[in-house]
Amino acid sequence: MKKPNIVILGAGYGGLTTTVKLQKKLGVNDANITLVNKHDYHYEATWLHEVAAGTIAPDRARFAIKDVIDGSKVNFVQDTVTSIDVENKKVVLEDGELDYDYLVVALGFEAATFGIPGLLENAFMIGNINSSRMLREHIDYHFAKYNNEIEKKQERLNIIVGGGGFTGIEYLGELTNRVTKLCEEYDIDRNQVRIINVEGAPSIMPGFDPQLVEYAMNTLEERGVEFKLGSMLKECRPDGITIEKDGEQEDIPSLTTVWAAGVRANSLVEKSLETNRGKVEVTPELRDPANENVFVIGDCALIMDKETGRPYPPTAQIAMQEAEVCAHNLATIVKGGSGELEHFEFNNLGTVASLGHSDAFGVVFGNKKIFGWTASVMKKVIDNRSLLKIGGLGLMLKKGKFNIFG
Amino acid sequence: MKKPNIVILGAGYGGLTTTVKLQKKLGVNDANITLVNKHDYHYEATWLHEVAAGTIAPDRARFAIKDVIDGSKVNFVQDTVTSIDVENKKVVLEDGELDYDYLVVALGFEAATFGIPGLLENAFMIGNINSSRMLREHIDYHFAKYNNEIEKKQERLNIIVGGGGFTGIEYLGELTNRVTKLCEEYDIDRNQVRIINVEGAPSIMPGFDPQLVEYAMNTLEERGVEFKLGSMLKECRPDGITIEKDGEQEDIPSLTTVWAAGVRANSLVEKSLETNRGKVEVTPELRDPANENVFVIGDCALIMDKETGRPYPPTAQIAMQEAEVCAHNLATIVKGGSGELEHFEFNNLGTVASLGHSDAFGVVFGNKKIFGWTASVMKKVIDNRSLLKIGGLGLMLKKGKFNIFG
Repeated sequence: MKKPNIVILGAGYGGLTTTVKLQKKLGVNDANITLVNKHDYHYEATWLHEVAAGTIAPDRARFAIKDVIDGSKVNFVQDTVTSIDVENKKVVLEDGELDYDYLVVALGFEAATFGIPGLLENAFMIGNINSSRMLREHIDYHFAKYNNEIEKKQERLNIIVGGGGFTGIEYLGELTNRVTKLCEEYDIDRNQVRIINVEGAPSIMPGFDPQLVEYAMNTLEERGVEFKLGSMLKECRPDGITIEKDGEQEDIPSLTTVWAAGVRANSLVEKSLETNRGKVEVTPELRDPANENVFVIGDCALIMDKETGRPYPPTAQIAMQEAEVCAHNLATIVKGGSGELEHFEFNNLGTVASLGHSDAFGVVFGNKKIFGWTASVMKKVIDNRSLLKIGGLGLMLKKGKFNIFG
Repeated sequence: MKKPNIVILGAGYGGLTTTVKLQKKLGVNDANITLVNKHDYHYEATWLHEVAAGTIAPDRARFAIKDVIDGSKVNFVQDTVTSIDVENKKVVLEDGELDYDYLVVALGFEAATFGIPGLLENAFMIGNINSSRMLREHIDYHFAKYNNEIEKKQERLNIIVGGGGFTGIEYLGELTNRVTKLCEEYDIDRNQVRIINVEGAPSIMPGFDPQLVEYAMNTLEERGVEFKLGSMLKECRPDGITIEKDGEQEDIPSLTTVWAAGVRANSLVEKSLETNRGKVEVTPELRDPANENVFVIGDCALIMDKETGRPYPPTAQIAMQEAEVCAHNLATIVKGGSGELEHFEFNNLGTVASLGHSDAFGVVFGNKKIFGWTASVMKKVIDNRSLLKIGGLGLMLKKGKFNIFG
């Protein structure tokens, strides 16, 4: 009997967790497992704001995929997916094709720019390791230039962060730490630097507990962040932006605009499968309703939260929980026994947003609000937990965050 | 009786050593001592190639002037000298004027570009802390850009170093170490990076021991440096250079040209005093022959080496030895006793050039050739020695180089 081909697309939180769980559940004779990823490394997407601010080295936030997969059971292909052909059960890559019997689509997110003029061309995104370290270098570079030029250009020191959601706020937390260091290094008065957050909603972190939102805003304002709330970004140019509030427009000169206000599912999903808001509205077993041998997880999957009536947000926590269900269901099907398929149920372990190295805020254990140093320790525990789940104790000890007193 | 005003211009090796020696030799009632410097810090000019390569942090290579001067005896003025008026015994600063009875001119060096078109505008110089860290950031930035662009631009990875003298070779030593790290960090194949040294003479380090020159060249070639010897830089553009060898021209695309091929005395000296090759040909007591109350030391002074019939090179070692003579002579004059003025005699303690962190080559103890790790330890000893002489044990322990096994 021919072994079935299981192909997993993407080695983010969802795809890589599925792979490591599957390699434990299946023997070498049960299936051919192939993992496809653009890079030969996995990166911690939830740590990218730190890379982008320059508060951790890029290599801290990634590890080699070969270090966590079992080469005797999993075949790794480093390539970029160009299309999925569900009719012929084929994945087309830049440098080849793969046939599958079962497919796991875990291709993650990309930036959504909502058609705002100039944004795609001129703004920096915190989307992957490469774009994040480019942003870090860009800011360093303009501080160096500012320091070295006789005629000072204020736009080198003005940094715009578009979006007051999770990524934007965590990035501001790191950036305020980093800018203080940069000012010391380049002999620049800290008051010369403007860090401006532009958010369309009337508050940052919409939907988050109001008391914690106030804590975050006060903390960041104390560190010099200017908030432009209820303000829409109208245009992004290489040397500045235009925002609009209550019908009035304002131009702000800046050589650094960071866009952290929107993500969408990888656009490949929309091109290959039937979607709702760009995502596949999966069955409780996490299958594509139109193709029962295709599983979709992570940021590419749409699952409704019955309590709120809105889709679950695209988070690492959810992607990893989906991966466990997906791996269980795939293993059950491949083994062909009498095992039952699981339905996905979200188990909310809490949400903590960091505000730089030693500060954070969030909700854990159902409804307990935490902030300050306690929350920052909890945030590090959460970050380490995902390393532990994917790569075991060895990976956690190698890449984990243990400097809680730093 | 009015206390004489001693004004010292420049807090480099010469000026700062003169100041700390004078404050030991003179009491508060002997003279008013004023030290003028552009920055509020002294930097280790002989370490700048490390800052420029990014192998040490800029703050490692500088320290606050207030940390080594005695505020009860020395008045520090942070300002830039615009001219010296020897007739009226006045120094004009950007923000004021100073009257002097005795003047020490220790204004250091600036880059000499020999009128090569585009060099001043487009090349990077390893001249001070600011320009050195700008160069470091510039290289980092283009590695990040290269990594992040779909269409790869080779000129981002081509680095030209003009000049195969002391600074150029030491910079190449650091740069080859640094580039290896950058390639790892930005996932760039090391073979993609070209580091090209352009030297007009038929050999690097002209005048240095041929065996050691060969050692240096082999070492750097093994690390991937291409040498273009007997080649003249004809033009420097923002995106490349033109060199000429044996009448044939070659264009090399590059966004980074470093000019390490020529220094001259601060051009202020030529404007204010009588000079030979831009420097003041001082008396054996280190005085300006035309103004006996003006001392000139360091890179602004011209002293002939009787053995070779050529001027001594502008080095930190010579500047610090001159400073000791200058301080002795000034103290003797001010005290008005029967003390004798000293004549400057160069005591050659040897010369060691570094080739990155754990390699170096040079001549010490008169004629002993050293290279490799031994030489690199000796180089660190030399670097620490200058800290010890200027700032004592405390400064050496704080800023010294002790990681000899690194």
